[in-house]
Amino acid sequence: MGARHGVVRDLLLVRGGMVVTGQASLRVDVLCGGMGEMLAVGPDLDIPAGCTVVDAGGLLVMPGGVDPHTAIGADEAGFARTAEALAGGTTTILDTLYPLGASLDDAWRAWWHAAARSRVDVGVHMALPAASPDVLQGMDVLVARRGVNAFHLSMADGLSDRAILQLAGHAAACGALCRIEAQNAQAVAYLRAELARAGITGGEACLLSAPPPVEAEATGRALMLAGLKGAPVQVGPVSTTGAVACLAAARLNGQRVEGHVLAPHLVVDETAHDADAAGGGAAWTSLPPFRDGTHRRALWGALACGTIGMVASGFRPVGRPGNGLPGGLAERMRVVWRHGVQAGLLGAEEFVAVTAQAAARAFNIYPRKGAIMPGADADLVLWDPDAQETSPHGPGTPYGGIMLGGRAVQVIRGGVTVWKDNRLYDDGCYGTYVPCPAFRSGLSVELREAARLSLRDG
Amino acid sequence: MGARHGVVRDLLLVRGGMVVTGQASLRVDVLCGGMGEMLAVGPDLDIPAGCTVVDAGGLLVMPGGVDPHTAIGADEAGFARTAEALAGGTTTILDTLYPLGASLDDAWRAWWHAAARSRVDVGVHMALPAASPDVLQGMDVLVARRGVNAFHLSMADGLSDRAILQLAGHAAACGALCRIEAQNAQAVAYLRAELARAGITGGEACLLSAPPPVEAEATGRALMLAGLKGAPVQVGPVSTTGAVACLAAARLNGQRVEGHVLAPHLVVDETAHDADAAGGGAAWTSLPPFRDGTHRRALWGALACGTIGMVASGFRPVGRPGNGLPGGLAERMRVVWRHGVQAGLLGAEEFVAVTAQAAARAFNIYPRKGAIMPGADADLVLWDPDAQETSPHGPGTPYGGIMLGGRAVQVIRGGVTVWKDNRLYDDGCYGTYVPCPAFRSGLSVELREAARLSLRDG
Amino acid sequence: MGARHGVVRDLLLVRGGMVVTGQASLRVDVLCGGMGEMLAVGPDLDIPAGCTVVDAGGLLVMPGGVDPHTAIGADEAGFARTAEALAGGTTTILDTLYPLGASLDDAWRAWWHAAARSRVDVGVHMALPAASPDVLQGMDVLVARRGVNAFHLSMADGLSDRAILQLAGHAAACGALCRIEAQNAQAVAYLRAELARAGITGGEACLLSAPPPVEAEATGRALMLAGLKGAPVQVGPVSTTGAVACLAAARLNGQRVEGHVLAPHLVVDETAHDADAAGGGAAWTSLPPFRDGTHRRALWGALACGTIGMVASGFRPVGRPGNGLPGGLAERMRVVWRHGVQAGLLGAEEFVAVTAQAAARAFNIYPRKGAIMPGADADLVLWDPDAQETSPHGPGTPYGGIMLGGRAVQVIRGGVTVWKDNRLYDDGCYGTYVPCPAFRSGLSVELREAARLSLRDG
Amino acid sequence: MGARHGVVRDLLLVRGGMVVTGQASLRVDVLCGGMGEMLAVGPDLDIPAGCTVVDAGGLLVMPGGVDPHTAIGADEAGFARTAEALAGGTTTILDTLYPLGASLDDAWRAWWHAAARSRVDVGVHMALPAASPDVLQGMDVLVARRGVNAFHLSMADGLSDRAILQLAGHAAACGALCRIEAQNAQAVAYLRAELARAGITGGEACLLSAPPPVEAEATGRALMLAGLKGAPVQVGPVSTTGAVACLAAARLNGQRVEGHVLAPHLVVDETAHDADAAGGGAAWTSLPPFRDGTHRRALWGALACGTIGMVASGFRPVGRPGNGLPGGLAERMRVVWRHGVQAGLLGAEEFVAVTAQAAARAFNIYPRKGAIMPGADADLVLWDPDAQETSPHGPGTPYGGIMLGGRAVQVIRGGVTVWKDNRLYDDGCYGTYVPCPAFRSGLSVELREAARLSLRDG
Repeated sequence: MGARHGVVRDLLLVRGGMVVTGQASLRVDVLCGGMGEMLAVGPDLDIPAGCTVVDAGGLLVMPGGVDPHTAIGADEAGFARTAEALAGGTTTILDTLYPLGASLDDAWRAWWHAAARSRVDVGVHMALPAASPDVLQGMDVLVARRGVNAFHLSMADGLSDRAILQLAGHAAACGALCRIEAQNAQAVAYLRAELARAGITGGEACLLSAPPPVEAEATGRALMLAGLKGAPVQVGPVSTTGAVACLAAARLNGQRVEGHVLAPHLVVDETAHDADAAGGGAAWTSLPPFRDGTHRRALWGALACGTIGMVASGFRPVGRPGNGLPGGLAERMRVVWRHGVQAGLLGAEEFVAVTAQAAARAFNIYPRKGAIMPGADADLVLWDPDAQETSPHGPGTPYGGIMLGGRAVQVIRGGVTVWKDNRLYDDGCYGTYVPCPAFRSGLSVELREAARLSLRDG
Repeated sequence: MGARHGVVRDLLLVRGGMVVTGQASLRVDVLCGGMGEMLAVGPDLDIPAGCTVVDAGGLLVMPGGVDPHTAIGADEAGFARTAEALAGGTTTILDTLYPLGASLDDAWRAWWHAAARSRVDVGVHMALPAASPDVLQGMDVLVARRGVNAFHLSMADGLSDRAILQLAGHAAACGALCRIEAQNAQAVAYLRAELARAGITGGEACLLSAPPPVEAEATGRALMLAGLKGAPVQVGPVSTTGAVACLAAARLNGQRVEGHVLAPHLVVDETAHDADAAGGGAAWTSLPPFRDGTHRRALWGALACGTIGMVASGFRPVGRPGNGLPGGLAERMRVVWRHGVQAGLLGAEEFVAVTAQAAARAFNIYPRKGAIMPGADADLVLWDPDAQETSPHGPGTPYGGIMLGGRAVQVIRGGVTVWKDNRLYDDGCYGTYVPCPAFRSGLSVELREAARLSLRDG
Repeated sequence: MGARHGVVRDLLLVRGGMVVTGQASLRVDVLCGGMGEMLAVGPDLDIPAGCTVVDAGGLLVMPGGVDPHTAIGADEAGFARTAEALAGGTTTILDTLYPLGASLDDAWRAWWHAAARSRVDVGVHMALPAASPDVLQGMDVLVARRGVNAFHLSMADGLSDRAILQLAGHAAACGALCRIEAQNAQAVAYLRAELARAGITGGEACLLSAPPPVEAEATGRALMLAGLKGAPVQVGPVSTTGAVACLAAARLNGQRVEGHVLAPHLVVDETAHDADAAGGGAAWTSLPPFRDGTHRRALWGALACGTIGMVASGFRPVGRPGNGLPGGLAERMRVVWRHGVQAGLLGAEEFVAVTAQAAARAFNIYPRKGAIMPGADADLVLWDPDAQETSPHGPGTPYGGIMLGGRAVQVIRGGVTVWKDNRLYDDGCYGTYVPCPAFRSGLSVELREAARLSLRDG
Repeated sequence: MGARHGVVRDLLLVRGGMVVTGQASLRVDVLCGGMGEMLAVGPDLDIPAGCTVVDAGGLLVMPGGVDPHTAIGADEAGFARTAEALAGGTTTILDTLYPLGASLDDAWRAWWHAAARSRVDVGVHMALPAASPDVLQGMDVLVARRGVNAFHLSMADGLSDRAILQLAGHAAACGALCRIEAQNAQAVAYLRAELARAGITGGEACLLSAPPPVEAEATGRALMLAGLKGAPVQVGPVSTTGAVACLAAARLNGQRVEGHVLAPHLVVDETAHDADAAGGGAAWTSLPPFRDGTHRRALWGALACGTIGMVASGFRPVGRPGNGLPGGLAERMRVVWRHGVQAGLLGAEEFVAVTAQAAARAFNIYPRKGAIMPGADADLVLWDPDAQETSPHGPGTPYGGIMLGGRAVQVIRGGVTVWKDNRLYDDGCYGTYVPCPAFRSGLSVELREAARLSLRDG
């Protein structure tokens, strides 16, 4: 699965820890091989010659986190910041790319070059601007040759229902998934204009122009449209009770749909949008906005029962298109550990499911990613389960003052230690492109080629 | 309340019947006065000199029916058919008018002339084509001077969410109600095109292009948009379980919203859209299409508990704009009596509520219409509660083979017997325009003037 | 309808007010006749000779309130306090009687004597202790001869599901309604014992031993059991979101069921159960307990859309069986006016519906009670719509510090002014027994006899 | 994990198949070791000396099925029939034992002796008759020393709400799970008596005495009671839309609850209870009864989204206590494969989840059971994914005429082939007792001892 760099690494044996996967917690060791893959998983493994031994005593050993929604795009500086993801235990991100007028393939190429600066492994989802013939054809190429198996449809950016029907249908036909960002763009714009006329802008306008019923409506609509085409979809970011209810109803009805939530929506209060409450700092802006406790409790309930399957960071460098946060790569998993696991809402296996396994499965890169088993990529995080810390206040984070839990003591990516002692451990080590295979089809020749290339070589 | 014709009629005393209103059933008599109004309601009323006595022994005496949704428009021939409404016990209709490119006021004037041929009293709702300044200004004029207090917003015809927000907001500001026809026009058109490419047209395409989730989605969206503006709305025609659920949820949430159903959707099966099942006749077309038993049961449940408040005929002459049926004025109340009252789902008071009182209240003409009390218009139907009959098959009706119940033995409109012995009883007797007062405001001078004019004088 | 006292009163004309019923608001006068009934309702009525004229200028004229749930029982002192009901605009109460070991008929007789001290008209519901043959037979007698058409089944007191099935079935068979007090008695008792072991008693135990899911569960169960028997039921007091959802679902499903709420549950916060928060006063105890804002909002929404049809005081003198409040007769309508009408959640007609008309209809005494029409009992309240006042703190009320709105300026019961100038206006004037006719059956000979007797004569 | 028999087996290599687990499908081989465990899982494993090679070409290789709900009890003849489970691909059952008056430990001992005849591995759940001190103490012993971690609470048998609260609380305290069979026993008994008086018995009475709302009510109640105690529970068998809705709502609310369904409820129509429709055979009896298509669709939807996590056979030998079927061990997995996987509702991974993995996880024996990974018990089924067959009619099965799909070509249990060529392959090979460890606690000394004993030795 996924050759890497052409460089052969030393063997590495992680032992003495409690290995946690999405299904079980076991006292086993993990042997990482020279090609960046896991070689063996089992109790009391022998130490091969020349093998580095990592002592995981007292720690949990989990698959490296998979962050299913960032929006870096073709931005080298943005990718440089993925060192923060490693610090937080995440070893793979699935980035969203807005073509911004370029052809889909040109956009992908530009992104591919920028992504060479990534410290984590990266796959990519392409945002679709419209349902033109060029776009439809571009989708075919990306799926067949570029390892793209998911497209981002932003109702928030004004994609019409007709376009969504066409794009979701075409995606399903070529073996790809759509992720729909469900907001009613007209309603949000109308309310923003009304608020602007009343002199309300900034964070408060952001909060008031996207009230919960707007998201719930759009979520229901997205699911209806996808259902008409029989197209499996992802919906998110989900932030409201009503959107959760739509997802749950569709799933009970047998529709194949999953949702994701951004980590901040699990813990950040709607007062973050209030300049007065912001304590001198600027009021926060985001779409969807942060919600009150009723909604946040619903999101946790949905996570616990699988209605929402995965947690993303929503990281978006300042100035890039799309909606997201100027930070959060480092906090994603720690937020879930503290307020989910340490608070008793989730078990450790469920933590691995929502921060790694589910995203890998949703985007068809499991068990290469998100698993601990022979043959999987040797991406591991050694996790201190007891750590707790208050997130500092700062301009780039909405987490100021919020408790974080757990800590990535050591992070191994592709069999190499890349984070340890609270710092990047191997300056020259960049991530690899992760081609996401089309659903229900093998990897094409070109795709395997793409996989073989290191991003760094790009 | 509402002077009429300038002609003074004879007094008329209806006695010996069981008077049924939306609240109660009482053994009382009803005295109709010379100006077309009810003078007295009570047990054993004295017979004034020169008074005609109508024996209602063995019959129910109910307010003349109020049909809240026809789509005749400026069509004299269409209005000529309102004799059928009298035959069915209906004495007032609230018609929907599509301006078809004309200014709203010009359209109203043309309609007003055509409506002079109406055999029933008529009010009118104006369909709005867009949210242009002309339209907004036209709304003001209609509300202030023409007795129009409701506007029809057709999502089925493609009104955008933005337009609905603007129109619903403007309507609320000028004291008018919006009725939203909730369908997802883009989804319906997309499916129709897809079906057409597969060679499926006609009734079957009509059924398959508007599946239940499409209506449910649009209903939820309509309610969300209205809720953002705090605008009270009507939604309908409602035909699905999902739309009922949306209405119920919004109402429980405190939103001021009502729904209406077309009588055929209560009883006609979806096989009416199937050419093969149509037995030689043509397959039926309608939007919304007819639904299966699960949906029909939900509609009856919603009627019984008030989630759907009123039943309309949906009569639309062939060739007129909008969605509707080429018949059904005569069957509206009989369908509800047979399958509601005689079937044990509704009481007689509830029958009056859903066929007369609720529509009168919803459009602010109660207790002039829909009530039996001194001062109300003397519109009465003497109803045989035990009659049952099978509706004949025919090209203009989807009711072929369906049981009807009850029968309008005698119909009094404005204190004059207009239907008796199964025929029009007074050839020269036409209906009157019913100005619908703006909500939360008195009648303006002009409006009272409009009310005073007989339509026939137009 | 209901002769009274044998005493002929003076005619009384209420004029100049805005008459508000459950359906409409009209500028009409009301003439009350010598037998305690309304003689005429209409604009600008003539003043008969010897008639007292009441000027209602600037006031609303509404049907006297009907309070559907008190629990006074055979307690003369308790009935003496019904002067408070008059002060609050209520002219009729429907009391609940616990037989406490006596036969049902003996209990009724004792109650009937005590009720002679009532200042308001009174009907009675009998609480049923079990489903024994004696009880079943006693039900028959009460329905046929005593004017009792409703029975109170308290799951809170431990009636088994089996007993409810038997009693609801028998009640339906003899033309009576059941009102089910839905709580899970075993769960409440279990939690109370657990709390007591932890040293938690009093108000806090009351709150913690009846958490919202317990009421929701029992409500769903009550509806299921009634549904199995096809028995129409009332459910209440309802205090939670979950119970409202159960009611709404059953009603949408076509089940004939209504609910009622106690006025305090609409406005009193759960902190009333907290001794520390009670500010020196004792912590409040009640079943159901008071709830937080989420639940209270749901109750208001349910009232606005008819899912909950009526508001009761829940007045229960100290030491009497059942659950309820040691006060509240005077506040019931004012609470709804302030937080419903003045707050914009309900219209004035809806206010009349939920405080008078619906209860009268539910218990089959409409339009004798709850209506303004010729023939109805001349029970009227002249209401100042603009009054507002803060309820004083006190040991007998949970309303301390809560705003009340509206004010009963003058109250007329049976055509006689009984409350005016903030005091009882006619010391010798007691209320009348209101026999509640069985559903779907005329009044029996005995029943008419019971109606003829003044309670005062008893 | 679980030593077995003391007998060392030959190595066995399953290769060339597609290995399917609950998470992924991979082309890997599985090497089974001499102690009955899996030694290695990976691509192209070497063939050790003395190893038997099984060619799984064209077949799926899945974990042996885990049937979470049979009701054999202490019945040797019943256990002899578990060869049918092997024939159907199931290698482990979790049996339910009714103590029938004996002490819990005596009952367990008797069961343990009978279970020695089992052809599959077996764990056991103890049904609890009441909440007496003896029972509570017996629970402690079973959990601490007998490897019992789940108790069966039958509301269908009349356990009171109080008893459920006590038992669920005690179970949670000693690290065990409760499974609640949710029916309203009083309602069912009442309806049965009513039906019997009308001469309706047998299958029809079974259907009519447990209508869907009865199960939904009891399910909601079970979840409420468990929620009050914070006790994780299983609920089932679930057969109705309403029960599914209760489960989904509780799960969304964050409650830790799972449900199971019996395979026949997924496919057998309610007409199975109709003697006339039974075609000469006897009408079927079961609790819960079989349901119509609406309910069955809801069950499939719930399976697809995880609201119902697992499928049981419900096998109960004739004459044994409890509710269940006199057959079905062989059909359980084939029903799900045909109507789930082959029908496109479930993927193959989801099939493994609902027929094996989820049950193993729910009862804390994963990954010993339900997994394919080194260290797991070597229980494998080689499955022909394309087989289809119609189930024959017969007195012991409700599946007559229903399509089955897939086929267990070869079944390996504990590393030994036990089913092949459509027959038991090793006559002397009996199953092993599977102690189920208490939740959140290690195995006690006694428990490990119990695990070491072969059932056959008992």
